[in-house]
Amino acid sequence: MTVEQMFALKGNLVYTEVPGKLTARRDAYLVCSGSQVTGVFDALPPAMTDIPVTDFGDQLIIPGLVDLHTHAPQFAFRGMGMDMELLQWLEDYPFREEARYEDFIYANQAYDRFVATLTRGGTARAVIFATIHSPATLHLMEMLSEAGMQAYVGKVSMDRNCPPALREKTGPGLADAENWIINSLGLFSGVRPILTPRFVPSCTEKMMKGLGELSAKYDLPVQSHLSENRAEVQWVRELHPGQSYAEVYDGFGLLGKPKPSIMAHCVYCTEEELDLMARNQVFVAHCPQSNTNLASGIAPVRRMLKRGVRVGLGTDMAGGFSASIFRAMSDAIQVSKLRWALLEEDEPFLTIPEVFFLATKGGGAFWGKAGSFEPGYAFDALVMDDTTLGSKENLDLEQRLERIIYLSDDRNISAKYVAGQRLF
Amino acid sequence: MTVEQMFALKGNLVYTEVPGKLTARRDAYLVCSGSQVTGVFDALPPAMTDIPVTDFGDQLIIPGLVDLHTHAPQFAFRGMGMDMELLQWLEDYPFREEARYEDFIYANQAYDRFVATLTRGGTARAVIFATIHSPATLHLMEMLSEAGMQAYVGKVSMDRNCPPALREKTGPGLADAENWIINSLGLFSGVRPILTPRFVPSCTEKMMKGLGELSAKYDLPVQSHLSENRAEVQWVRELHPGQSYAEVYDGFGLLGKPKPSIMAHCVYCTEEELDLMARNQVFVAHCPQSNTNLASGIAPVRRMLKRGVRVGLGTDMAGGFSASIFRAMSDAIQVSKLRWALLEEDEPFLTIPEVFFLATKGGGAFWGKAGSFEPGYAFDALVMDDTTLGSKENLDLEQRLERIIYLSDDRNISAKYVAGQRLF
Repeated sequence: MTVEQMFALKGNLVYTEVPGKLTARRDAYLVCSGSQVTGVFDALPPAMTDIPVTDFGDQLIIPGLVDLHTHAPQFAFRGMGMDMELLQWLEDYPFREEARYEDFIYANQAYDRFVATLTRGGTARAVIFATIHSPATLHLMEMLSEAGMQAYVGKVSMDRNCPPALREKTGPGLADAENWIINSLGLFSGVRPILTPRFVPSCTEKMMKGLGELSAKYDLPVQSHLSENRAEVQWVRELHPGQSYAEVYDGFGLLGKPKPSIMAHCVYCTEEELDLMARNQVFVAHCPQSNTNLASGIAPVRRMLKRGVRVGLGTDMAGGFSASIFRAMSDAIQVSKLRWALLEEDEPFLTIPEVFFLATKGGGAFWGKAGSFEPGYAFDALVMDDTTLGSKENLDLEQRLERIIYLSDDRNISAKYVAGQRLF
Repeated sequence: MTVEQMFALKGNLVYTEVPGKLTARRDAYLVCSGSQVTGVFDALPPAMTDIPVTDFGDQLIIPGLVDLHTHAPQFAFRGMGMDMELLQWLEDYPFREEARYEDFIYANQAYDRFVATLTRGGTARAVIFATIHSPATLHLMEMLSEAGMQAYVGKVSMDRNCPPALREKTGPGLADAENWIINSLGLFSGVRPILTPRFVPSCTEKMMKGLGELSAKYDLPVQSHLSENRAEVQWVRELHPGQSYAEVYDGFGLLGKPKPSIMAHCVYCTEEELDLMARNQVFVAHCPQSNTNLASGIAPVRRMLKRGVRVGLGTDMAGGFSASIFRAMSDAIQVSKLRWALLEEDEPFLTIPEVFFLATKGGGAFWGKAGSFEPGYAFDALVMDDTTLGSKENLDLEQRLERIIYLSDDRNISAKYVAGQRLF
């Protein structure tokens, strides 16, 4: 990297290197080389004094946020129909809406809104469910790439316990998945495919086995849902007696090692399942808002962290109505407080430095080095203007960050960089 | 009222006449005479065809929202310091900040921000704690009145268990309260005084007795806090053995009948206390976000409603960080779902029509007739433009209202009327 390809942002940097601890650097320089962080400096080193500097004054600069779990085709009905539990809701809302994505024109319009909202918000990187339809999924990947976002996108696979319009035939479904992989792998800058069995109840063993084989063959990660709701866990127990929900995935090579995987929710995982996930380095996508809206429960995040499970945050639209990982951070703190207050367990609730870690470096680890300003990390940055949020008199950067997490909206994001590129 | 003083708004009206049921009228006229609703009409009656009509097209028109409990002097630190429980938090944040309101210049600046935010948001009517300082409290009342808001504002009374800077001497404190009443009663259009013992632990019996007498003498309502947090409830038990928390207030004429009163929180009220409140027609200000942030718990709203207790919603800034009663509605639903999921009780969670009632006619009843579009009700209306929230294709008004409650912010409020006056 030559000096010509470098630049710096100047402002108040706040990020996390280790869970639970904020690093705050006032009036510092964040230097980018290509798409990566070179380092953080109080004054530019002599070799860099000629690089262009954008001075953001008293604003805060934080790492771009990471959304480990969301459903692009559910964006259209977010904020509606939230008066039912998971299994009934799936029938009435997601399945009905997702069937429409066979219509490429409709999908194009709907995904356009999704991508625009994602791009304008704080999310730099996202892991996304599409639908079973490859053409619309490829188009979503292209749109995200053109917008400058970093993403994994999954064409959904499902061949049982779902409406006919969304039920794949197992063999052709697997063939379609493989074609979609071939047609997307390496094609969209910053956007890659991820294998996506919807969840155990909607995938036959043959389907899960085939997806595990595709994961191995193409060296691809996996995403799915795990232990979201009591009735769903009971259903899986009936479908696969003698195995835990996590073991079902593991048996088909869909639960972490050797390929990375993300399991959304994990509200009702047993200690044994958490240990299995820790061993396999599975990422949990904690989706507090969705788990609340669907009356699923509150995931034991503190326990996961203690057992060494990797955790990031997810919006899970449209089980969650909000597209914002800022909101996911405050939601994560809030539900952990209610878990503490109602269950009277001995696990303290989550703190701002902890959820900020989950929202940045925690989820960012799915990409390797993302979500921090340490050297070698992907250069994802949000510039936050908090002047509308109240007086800054006597506030330290930690307090300003807390207020941003609770009160900001997209109007407070004054600039956004993803992988070294400025999106706005 | 002559026809000259009448006008109409045209649009899609949604409101509640009875708890749990929405009334939706597409392309209807909402007619105002002076400060009151004349009625809702599909077409203007012959006698009214000449009145001015503002046509809001496809937008939704809903009653102005009611905030039954908030603290104006805590607005300055909302979104910060939310990592502790009630009693420690009171020492570290509210008490420290409220002491500054002895400084009139500081109070003026801080209240200016509070009033501006309240006015720009969905709240038409609010019941507000100020501080112990009469001059700043009078100024807050004047500012609210000039902004066109409807409010009850309380100079806080407290004479024990608080920092010296905020501790009144009992006799002079009561005299100051009476002077403040005399100086504010009837003086500020739309804004009236309300007696405000902070809560039992911070008021001596002599203070509570004196405030009860002032309530009777000047025919004034009362607001306070009740059963917010386990440690607080235990403290009151030690201070007043042999009585329930609610009975302590009742013994001093501070709990409803004959004068109306509002008790914030009521998370841990016993069945006997709820029955007492129902008999006395006390309003509960349910503040779900604050109860979550301070890890207090989840109030049993369904149980309150079943027992005939009157309930409205409160933001309780800055225990709550949000100024929005829209957010209080979605929070109320969310926490009721978590109560249901975690405690596995047999009380179904709250629904959109129920929380919409609490946020409008439920809390509005504190003013008599407010919070609905029925004839004779105060003309408070919000015009909601939901075009940025997604497609409206095939949506009914109930779905659009639900989405507004979950997703809107102040940008979606395109016009606001309070007591017949257009604020913007």
